[in-house]
Amino acid sequence: MKALPSAVRWDAEGPALILLDQTKLPRVTVFLRLTEAEEVEQAIRRLQVRGAPAIGLAAAWGLILGLRQAAGSNRSELEAAFKGVTKHLLNSRPTAVNLRWALEKLGRIFYLQPPSLRREPLLKALEAEAARLQADDEVVGLRLGEHGLTLLQPGWGLLTHCNAGSLATAKWGTALAPIHLGQERGFGFTVWADETRPLLQGSRLTAWELQQSGVEVTLICDNMAASVLASGKVQAVVVGCDRVAANGDVANKIGTLGLAVLARHFGVPFYVFAPTSTLDHDCPSGASIPIEERGRDEVISFSGSAPSAPESVKVFNPAFDVTPATLVTALVTDRGILWPPYGPALEKLQEESHG
Amino acid sequence: MKALPSAVRWDAEGPALILLDQTKLPRVTVFLRLTEAEEVEQAIRRLQVRGAPAIGLAAAWGLILGLRQAAGSNRSELEAAFKGVTKHLLNSRPTAVNLRWALEKLGRIFYLQPPSLRREPLLKALEAEAARLQADDEVVGLRLGEHGLTLLQPGWGLLTHCNAGSLATAKWGTALAPIHLGQERGFGFTVWADETRPLLQGSRLTAWELQQSGVEVTLICDNMAASVLASGKVQAVVVGCDRVAANGDVANKIGTLGLAVLARHFGVPFYVFAPTSTLDHDCPSGASIPIEERGRDEVISFSGSAPSAPESVKVFNPAFDVTPATLVTALVTDRGILWPPYGPALEKLQEESHG
Repeated sequence: MKALPSAVRWDAEGPALILLDQTKLPRVTVFLRLTEAEEVEQAIRRLQVRGAPAIGLAAAWGLILGLRQAAGSNRSELEAAFKGVTKHLLNSRPTAVNLRWALEKLGRIFYLQPPSLRREPLLKALEAEAARLQADDEVVGLRLGEHGLTLLQPGWGLLTHCNAGSLATAKWGTALAPIHLGQERGFGFTVWADETRPLLQGSRLTAWELQQSGVEVTLICDNMAASVLASGKVQAVVVGCDRVAANGDVANKIGTLGLAVLARHFGVPFYVFAPTSTLDHDCPSGASIPIEERGRDEVISFSGSAPSAPESVKVFNPAFDVTPATLVTALVTDRGILWPPYGPALEKLQEESHG
Repeated sequence: MKALPSAVRWDAEGPALILLDQTKLPRVTVFLRLTEAEEVEQAIRRLQVRGAPAIGLAAAWGLILGLRQAAGSNRSELEAAFKGVTKHLLNSRPTAVNLRWALEKLGRIFYLQPPSLRREPLLKALEAEAARLQADDEVVGLRLGEHGLTLLQPGWGLLTHCNAGSLATAKWGTALAPIHLGQERGFGFTVWADETRPLLQGSRLTAWELQQSGVEVTLICDNMAASVLASGKVQAVVVGCDRVAANGDVANKIGTLGLAVLARHFGVPFYVFAPTSTLDHDCPSGASIPIEERGRDEVISFSGSAPSAPESVKVFNPAFDVTPATLVTALVTDRGILWPPYGPALEKLQEESHG
């Protein structure tokens, strides 16, 4: 893939977390250099870093920054800091499960270390784990791409929503991984990108990212997807996800549910790309996934424009929706493609990982 | 209904056409005073007046302004002007059939007058016809409201798209007519308004218009409609239309097709409000309806903001889509409610009007 800037990068010398500020794209490519957990928490909350895998990685590095800031060097002081920073970071975005997943990975390392281990080697062990998560995510993206490509054919039209791309992960993306990979291998996909209101991740990020990668991309408003699907120009819909429940229900960016219904109606397969880090075996169904509601300003204005609606109007702004498993044609994971019924398939995957 | 400013009004003293500039709402209420056909054609093209019925009325008054401008007083000179101005106005928007319908109504009056009739009485006869069209449109809206209300129950949640309201017509609107009427009669509807990208007629116009009328309205992005429908809070979807083909296929604002698919999926009735002026008996099916494609700027920027997408990105921006008759629960016309199969029902309506 043509070189795309990394969305999340650790500078061990700083130490500092370098984030590509995604609220500034596509106009300018600005990197944030964060040295405090509080800054990382704010960057997640403000969507300067977004996308479930990237949020998880940023939170992991944010936790390490928080521990480096913490005074004291005995284990109980560090443990108190660990718990406090973790709790704070967990509150930044409620829907993506990767946030919790990444922090739990660091938690395992933290509690595995012998109590005698001193501050610096402990922090180094945690840094190694975060670096491993970051490297793993790159491998996960490559695997999602490889598995995804087996479902797609050269010359196909693909429709995607939000940004499940390189910008949302360590490198390849999730739903966009097979597109980047296919581009390298001459698949010649044409991609329709939903702009994805209210925050326009599709026009700001996906259109930009696919252009950088040399993919032919056409931008549409979300409500044009039905026309494009009806026209027969799309052979598959590919989306990422923020959380998959144990029954295969999927939480993803608002608008995904509508696309899934349209894909079913027009007979187009609907593929959800789910790194294993997004699988939440403890969540029985979509009904149990908390859906973040965001502020009214996002809907009544964009990027500092004058409000397009009456200032006093009531607004409903859910950031995610839940697509029932019945509308998902296949779940593409880094450990293979799952087909319905998803309950048993997901259970088998979990058993294998604990086996 | 609480007083709403008229979207289209004739000032006989001027003479001038007074249009509420809908591109400036909801921030300011500005009226355009137009005295030339060219200005009217531009106002239609720029969407300063929009909505199929209002476009028809504006074009009728624009034609009269064009004839008033025309030099010469003999019939052949006036006929040449009539033809020229009509052709020019017809090109301003290709999808709405009312434009042609209104101009044809004036054509009938023009050619019915004895060749001996002089310029001024001829123009007066045309003005009387335009005034009749305007008065008729008010009656049509009231009838759409009355018929529509028979399908709706007090306390229902309704979802609408674009602006099929007072601002699109002489007074009551089409899909919003039963909502305004219901408001007067204590039906207590709660309305969900799609913002309607790219031009935000829902947030700029519908939210504003319903607030003025005292209706409880909640604004959502288009891609949130699936979540709202899935939540069970909506008992009917009501939309207007720009053209109905002889088989009941319906052209309306982009996004309508997607809503119709969603309504079917979630078991919610999908009602299309169609004044008889939007029925195009000469158009066999939706496949024959020309779909206007508009410029890329509407999609890559939001309400005058800096571009949200890379400047060079390819954009697809159809202004309308076609909803197949099979997805329409009922067609509400000013002459009663039509149920499937629409072909015979529309034919019967046409026969009655010629009977």
